[in-house]
Amino acid sequence: MNQSFQSELIFTRDFPSEPFDFEKDILIYDQHLLALEVSPMIALFKRSYGVQAGESLKQLSQLENHLQNVLELNPLGLSRQDRLIAMGGGSVGDFVGFMASILKRGIRWANIPTTWLAAIDSAHGGKTALNFAAQKNQLGTFYPAEKVFLVENILSRQPEQRWVEAYGELFKMSLIAGNPLFEKLNLNKPISIDHVWSLLPLAIEEKYKIVLQDPYEKTGLRQILNLGHTVGHVLEAELNIPHGVAIFWGLGFAVEWSRELKFLNASEAFEIQTVIEIFVNQYLKCERPKLTADQLQRGLMADKKRALQSALNFILLKGKGDVFVYRTDIDSVVKEAARQGWLE
Amino acid sequence: MNQSFQSELIFTRDFPSEPFDFEKDILIYDQHLLALEVSPMIALFKRSYGVQAGESLKQLSQLENHLQNVLELNPLGLSRQDRLIAMGGGSVGDFVGFMASILKRGIRWANIPTTWLAAIDSAHGGKTALNFAAQKNQLGTFYPAEKVFLVENILSRQPEQRWVEAYGELFKMSLIAGNPLFEKLNLNKPISIDHVWSLLPLAIEEKYKIVLQDPYEKTGLRQILNLGHTVGHVLEAELNIPHGVAIFWGLGFAVEWSRELKFLNASEAFEIQTVIEIFVNQYLKCERPKLTADQLQRGLMADKKRALQSALNFILLKGKGDVFVYRTDIDSVVKEAARQGWLE
Repeated sequence: MNQSFQSELIFTRDFPSEPFDFEKDILIYDQHLLALEVSPMIALFKRSYGVQAGESLKQLSQLENHLQNVLELNPLGLSRQDRLIAMGGGSVGDFVGFMASILKRGIRWANIPTTWLAAIDSAHGGKTALNFAAQKNQLGTFYPAEKVFLVENILSRQPEQRWVEAYGELFKMSLIAGNPLFEKLNLNKPISIDHVWSLLPLAIEEKYKIVLQDPYEKTGLRQILNLGHTVGHVLEAELNIPHGVAIFWGLGFAVEWSRELKFLNASEAFEIQTVIEIFVNQYLKCERPKLTADQLQRGLMADKKRALQSALNFILLKGKGDVFVYRTDIDSVVKEAARQGWLE
Repeated sequence: MNQSFQSELIFTRDFPSEPFDFEKDILIYDQHLLALEVSPMIALFKRSYGVQAGESLKQLSQLENHLQNVLELNPLGLSRQDRLIAMGGGSVGDFVGFMASILKRGIRWANIPTTWLAAIDSAHGGKTALNFAAQKNQLGTFYPAEKVFLVENILSRQPEQRWVEAYGELFKMSLIAGNPLFEKLNLNKPISIDHVWSLLPLAIEEKYKIVLQDPYEKTGLRQILNLGHTVGHVLEAELNIPHGVAIFWGLGFAVEWSRELKFLNASEAFEIQTVIEIFVNQYLKCERPKLTADQLQRGLMADKKRALQSALNFILLKGKGDVFVYRTDIDSVVKEAARQGWLE
């Protein structure tokens, strides 16, 4: 690694100008932001490059073109002292971080996540990613940003639906971390942007507690951050459900399966399921999705977390703040999905 | 980093079969090797992929195609437990190491350098590289192979000219390390393949002493491994001189400049210059190349080690085993080249 795995976190109400070198820093930003009135901030950077955020940004086939455009901003050639600044959601951070990690064997970069999902989750922990061969995040590096800026005035410009969608990852962290995060997040109703913002430092801190024990996913500990993701990824891929919402549903699956397998006692399961129900009714306002057995099977096969052909690691709970890797297989997940009524 | 920065070194007379999993390991080899009678070793691997070695292998524009071909060897999909094996010269190691470093955020890899140049130098120290935008090694990662196999029976199949060309990097290490490497390498004539092979462990060990103090080129210490490379790279790029030979000439430049600037005393300079002269007459058997001032200037401008437009770090010697970074500029190098009689 080129630098400490823990990014410096800067929580700020307004966009700060001191930490940037507007002459030299190269800003790579999501063009959608121009509609959110952040143009004045973008205009501060003499060198900037607008990209179309989303998974297509991360296609390896586009990398050469993007690199060319970034290098052209710097006619004297990049040096290791140059710095990329990402401003956008998860895809922009994944992409810029990857680019920074391979330019000159690693140049400096900082991240300004502009979506709640990125601010809560993907901006932290050092994962960069590109897509290749129709598989998401097939390529990537571990290369944390030097600094991550959490800017309330940028994050709060998103439509309300965005934080509702992001809640899945925050709820996940509250299940992994347990109290006080669970209590502060879930027992202080109503949930609001202000509430999410106020819990951001704690949620990120809890994520780092896991990440720093297994930064390169060597010991398997970091896997527990995949709580809700096995089924979540299938919902995302097969039904096109937004990531955070898909994870939220996946958490519901994991909680109920943990209860059924008696890892989780009934009263704690009930407490968590009540929170889920309230959130669905008051904020998500939609029905639980349904899958065909085929869709579920195909989605689980494609999930990159599977180690062997049909075996997979599923993250389950023994309680709030107590999650673990459960070794199972695709058939068992499908059977449990049928039992829970997920299948059409 | 995913693993220890120091690769495990395996020196062996014959190709060893125990360390490999011929069913699962994915061999990526230089197709030229088929002419060197290593086909039986290659045939041991159930999954193998032959590539055309050389700088074109490292073009970013080819990466997608190569990745596709490698992934097709593994229809079940790669996992982090899979391992790539590089068998070839520096370009193959650079390329396979890069690929391993970005697949799934880093999979395992091992390296079997088949050229003296790679065995002496590029296989050690964790640098992987791709070329982009007409600039060599513009992209890359620090991602050491888990294991590096030095196989005498493979290395010695190269034509004699190959180790003569590689001698530049070995001579460089002897200047950086000083005695005993310098003495053993340069005062035991005649030089031969056996002699080079016998000094390989010591030369690699000396390289690691530098690398491990500054694995990510953060402190600048690792820069001293560029001794001979500033002028060497220009000769390589402008006159198409093989890398090791170009470095050898570049070392001559650095020694003479060090003497002229009185960093190096006359008697030690004379001792080193005598070794250089003998090697040129007995092994290289060619004239010192000449450059135009334009070629030199252009080449120095392009050299990636320059930090600012005309300033550059030039590695000089105070003695054998005592090299340092000298801050200078392009004009001074050109002036010194004229003084030394390098310019047409």
